[in-house]
Amino acid sequence: MVRVVVDATGGDFCPQAPVEGALKALEAEQGLLLTLAGPEGEIKQALAGKAYDAGRLAILDCPETITNHEHPATAIRRKRGSAIVQGMGLVKSGQADAFVSTGSTGAVLSGAMLLLGRMEGVSRPALMPMLPTVGGRPVILIDCGANVDCKPIHLQQFALMGSAYLQAMEGVEQPRVALLNIGAEAEKGNELTKAVYPLLDQMPIHFTGNIEARDILSGQADVIVTDAFAGNIAMKATEGAAGALMQMLKQEMTANPWYSLLAAMLKPALRRVKNRMDYEKVGGAPLIGVKGCVFKGHGSSHAGAVERMIDQAVRYVQRDVTSRVAGAIDSAGVAWHRGEG
Amino acid sequence: MVRVVVDATGGDFCPQAPVEGALKALEAEQGLLLTLAGPEGEIKQALAGKAYDAGRLAILDCPETITNHEHPATAIRRKRGSAIVQGMGLVKSGQADAFVSTGSTGAVLSGAMLLLGRMEGVSRPALMPMLPTVGGRPVILIDCGANVDCKPIHLQQFALMGSAYLQAMEGVEQPRVALLNIGAEAEKGNELTKAVYPLLDQMPIHFTGNIEARDILSGQADVIVTDAFAGNIAMKATEGAAGALMQMLKQEMTANPWYSLLAAMLKPALRRVKNRMDYEKVGGAPLIGVKGCVFKGHGSSHAGAVERMIDQAVRYVQRDVTSRVAGAIDSAGVAWHRGEG
Repeated sequence: MVRVVVDATGGDFCPQAPVEGALKALEAEQGLLLTLAGPEGEIKQALAGKAYDAGRLAILDCPETITNHEHPATAIRRKRGSAIVQGMGLVKSGQADAFVSTGSTGAVLSGAMLLLGRMEGVSRPALMPMLPTVGGRPVILIDCGANVDCKPIHLQQFALMGSAYLQAMEGVEQPRVALLNIGAEAEKGNELTKAVYPLLDQMPIHFTGNIEARDILSGQADVIVTDAFAGNIAMKATEGAAGALMQMLKQEMTANPWYSLLAAMLKPALRRVKNRMDYEKVGGAPLIGVKGCVFKGHGSSHAGAVERMIDQAVRYVQRDVTSRVAGAIDSAGVAWHRGEG
Repeated sequence: MVRVVVDATGGDFCPQAPVEGALKALEAEQGLLLTLAGPEGEIKQALAGKAYDAGRLAILDCPETITNHEHPATAIRRKRGSAIVQGMGLVKSGQADAFVSTGSTGAVLSGAMLLLGRMEGVSRPALMPMLPTVGGRPVILIDCGANVDCKPIHLQQFALMGSAYLQAMEGVEQPRVALLNIGAEAEKGNELTKAVYPLLDQMPIHFTGNIEARDILSGQADVIVTDAFAGNIAMKATEGAAGALMQMLKQEMTANPWYSLLAAMLKPALRRVKNRMDYEKVGGAPLIGVKGCVFKGHGSSHAGAVERMIDQAVRYVQRDVTSRVAGAIDSAGVAWHRGEG
């Protein structure tokens, strides 16, 4: 059995979305034991009238909620009764295998750092969302978490962890690892990317060189390495451009009744495009480099996205991804991360 | 008369696109004197058989071409016979008012720095492309040029220059200036954005706070301030996402003959969306902070884009944008840029 704790607090549609997502996952996956963490009364209310296998669903009463507006590390230290602190506590003590949340990114990251701790040899755990590509297979962007100011060593570790994750989790044999940069040539970039390029080139990964932001969705790379500032800009610019284009499409396609009629008949095709661009459909983002399985979903996740995130956590645990990533970090040797970071 | 030098070298469709763009601009604008700079034989060949007012079109024979693969500053120093060096020389000596190019960005930037020089009080001239927005009025993103590693003082200058440019060039009274960042709150960001936020807040501009990359195309800001690394990532991610989405639309809308038929009838609406997202339609990017008028167009610019860039240069000269931006820098006082940068 895989034991997953689902945070029922913090997201835009809590506790309904996590509760409904949990019930869907429970029904689909018989080898799953779930714990819903959050205020017991609210969770019970969301569960009322629903049919589920009560033997595989527990409630962990966590009366305190951490919001996006709190200082993450302070909130983790003070709010011991929150779902993040309590849920990660179960993972830490071995009573659960994974923790998934749609709550505050900062609090999830801080909680994982403070409560689970970093893997041996990892300076900075990283959050890696998956983006859809034109080719089909999603690409992971690492880091899109808290590491906004990075040294080369951090990007080297991101490259190694992203690559090892895809090998373990998705069975990609030689993940193509690229460096997010502003030009194709090795000498292009800012101080950080110029310094890290030759280092990535010497690592035990399949490094394919620089990738420009216009090619993120092209499917040319499996892992794109970046500091979290540029990663966040790239991810949100992508999201924003797709949204703006869909909005313009809607404006132009309803500019007259005839167009509206044609557009209505094309709706299934348009919906397919929207679904393909929808990050939620791809799933939550794993936090990699901590001692345990943690997935973070978008704050606006609906039940379906939570269900997919639970599925990902199950697979992560079954494939023992934490150990395999730790092994990759370990076997890369200490030479490239000794005394730095 | 406004005297504009058009670089007929370096772009993807040279010399045809610049030559044809120049002829279109010449026909539309009677107060224009044009000089086409490039290999004389090639330009004459591109002009052959075309009707134009020969009294307002000169050819400046520049046999050398600078490519994207050369080190920009070195190329500028060595290739004295190139269109960039010769054309900017005319601007420097007062024999021309403006220089427009679709050639190597690095060479145009280096050439302007070395040949025209920086405005008094400006540490780093900046390139500011205009992006289309959902609302209609384009937004400028400054810097998307060479300033990949910036100090706060540089971003302060970008803010002032971008704001003064829009006031002078487009008559926007109080341009809304925002800082590209990874969160809305003042304390969010990397070292650079956290340091510059309070400084921007005290400047004689209409600073509206942070803007996230997902809102770039929303029309919430008129000027978005950033270092050129993040600016480049944001711009190209936007371009890439729009391209990927159009590609997915095409795939889904031609998935069967019925959809193809509907899509064909919707073609004018789809083309309008494509046009609205097309940066070329918005025009070239001005290089601001140098002593002279320089516009840089996309390497893949066609004749129409070159024509629009020439129009922009004419307006820039007529409205005396260089002096007005220099005045804004000057009147902001020396207190905030003394001894730095």
